[in-house]
Amino acid sequence: MENLINHQIRLAARPVGMPKRSDWAFTEEAVAQPGAGEVLVKVLYLSLDPAMRGWMNAGKSYIRPVEIGEVMRAGAVGHVIASGDAKFPVGAAVVGGFGVQEYACVNSSEVTLIDLRLAPFPVWLGALGMPGMTAYFGLLDVCQPKAGDTVLVSGAAGAVGSVVGQIAKIKGCRVIGIAGGADKCRYVVEELGFDAAIDYKAEDLKTALRQHAPKGVNVYFDNVGGATLDAALAYLARNARIGICGAISQYNATEGVVGPANYLSLLVNRARMEGFVVFDYAPRYGEAVAELAAWLKSGQLKTREDIVDGLETFPETLLKLFKGENLGKLVLRVAGE
Amino acid sequence: MENLINHQIRLAARPVGMPKRSDWAFTEEAVAQPGAGEVLVKVLYLSLDPAMRGWMNAGKSYIRPVEIGEVMRAGAVGHVIASGDAKFPVGAAVVGGFGVQEYACVNSSEVTLIDLRLAPFPVWLGALGMPGMTAYFGLLDVCQPKAGDTVLVSGAAGAVGSVVGQIAKIKGCRVIGIAGGADKCRYVVEELGFDAAIDYKAEDLKTALRQHAPKGVNVYFDNVGGATLDAALAYLARNARIGICGAISQYNATEGVVGPANYLSLLVNRARMEGFVVFDYAPRYGEAVAELAAWLKSGQLKTREDIVDGLETFPETLLKLFKGENLGKLVLRVAGE
Repeated sequence: MENLINHQIRLAARPVGMPKRSDWAFTEEAVAQPGAGEVLVKVLYLSLDPAMRGWMNAGKSYIRPVEIGEVMRAGAVGHVIASGDAKFPVGAAVVGGFGVQEYACVNSSEVTLIDLRLAPFPVWLGALGMPGMTAYFGLLDVCQPKAGDTVLVSGAAGAVGSVVGQIAKIKGCRVIGIAGGADKCRYVVEELGFDAAIDYKAEDLKTALRQHAPKGVNVYFDNVGGATLDAALAYLARNARIGICGAISQYNATEGVVGPANYLSLLVNRARMEGFVVFDYAPRYGEAVAELAAWLKSGQLKTREDIVDGLETFPETLLKLFKGENLGKLVLRVAGE
Repeated sequence: MENLINHQIRLAARPVGMPKRSDWAFTEEAVAQPGAGEVLVKVLYLSLDPAMRGWMNAGKSYIRPVEIGEVMRAGAVGHVIASGDAKFPVGAAVVGGFGVQEYACVNSSEVTLIDLRLAPFPVWLGALGMPGMTAYFGLLDVCQPKAGDTVLVSGAAGAVGSVVGQIAKIKGCRVIGIAGGADKCRYVVEELGFDAAIDYKAEDLKTALRQHAPKGVNVYFDNVGGATLDAALAYLARNARIGICGAISQYNATEGVVGPANYLSLLVNRARMEGFVVFDYAPRYGEAVAELAAWLKSGQLKTREDIVDGLETFPETLLKLFKGENLGKLVLRVAGE
């Protein structure tokens, strides 16, 4: 191990707007040997998530910011290659917040074993990882869809939205996705079984919502914020529930977040808008993994990963999320399996 | 009755911004004799409410708009002076949506008897009327305060806010009011027993919230919207509940409603924002009246009415609400008791 070099990507500056290459520092250091209670993981795949943009900002949030000079926080999967904890033997497949680097030497309490018989590595960063947990608890716990409800989800072709829509279908809802571009719209309808998709880049959102949700939207699962949230607010059904999962349209805003001008629709429609943070559901992740894995096995849940190669591409690959260039879960392959 | 003249105020034009005198038409007509199932009411007091501004706008809302040429909708109390329904004998004290006029001949299904032993007429338009119902159900059902919670209420010296804060105190909460001007702030603290008041006209809201709610706000009951809602969002505690009762700061906006730019605080704090409409609670009004009346009797609940004389002053008196000139429930006296 002592001869292995760990290439890392650290936060060099707090970005203004879209993160630039100069906001990152590329470093390398010798790989450490794990002590007692520690585990050394060789990272195979990194999870790239919209939330990472928020972690780069200073200030109070649901999680502490990544500090300048710190290895960028990221979820990852890999193999244990040296271990100071018998529960994580060499060769074990694991998931954890290993960061944007090739090797992570971490306390074993931060590591979780994964079962590759249920799904291959990248899926443990998607449907069986944070995005899947986010979709599962955000939809079922926060939005409480009922059979027959009209469920609207933005970022529908993304890691979270694609799972949200499929769970809603499983629960007997009518599902409308919002995505950017014909390919994504075709994907969610033809491959994932959504009832309809709205291409926000080509269609007028309000006209499309009027057409696809003539009785209003009972549940809106919001990944994007901005004008899309405002349009959804304008088409709420009575007693609608909006789950605020994220606001990718606002994460790189340099002139302040745009608030939803139509928020008084909450009053008119006796509706609620509720935020949530997936980490709060950690004690129940097992329950979600079991159910999602069963749906994967039965074919009711489909996943797609958008895999890009090379740790060094991280700065540019991350931006695919904000440019809407990924289809499905965006994953960075750091090393071959 | 046939010789009585009914002076009425009708909506003449849909206002742009603040309603002007030319948006109203003053009409008179002979008082009708009630038929079977009808009741003729002599109006004594009219309720003036911020919500009336919304009723003057065209478009879908929680209630149909007042049409051009129609007598302006208003809650009112008065005496039955002729009756086609034995349940409402002549002389009975009643409340209902009698409109901005001196006499109302209405279907008896729209009339409710009131008990003047519990409180005098004007209180039946305030703490025991719609504002009281709004405060009771909006706070207890929608915001679900728990003993020890920090409860923030805007429009704190108004008809709804003053009751919200007092109920929250009864329930063991720490209560902070937001009001405009030193008199209102003194009133809610010294007379109503709020723990603190913030004068939004004289103080920086954020600084004051940081001072008065160092652990964050568990419940925010919003009557005003705008910058106040945004400030409250910035000081939410984990799992906070925001009840959207109204948005008086926005009702006369001519350039569109300003949305709450800090809405992502809902996500960070796992909080929810929920709208409600008091009419939904009509089946439970009796329950609220009984409890509010008991608190009035015990002295735990205090009320103040701001009574202005003369139907003809309606156009200007209504504006007191939007200028923040009323202290307590604004009532228009149409006739002496």
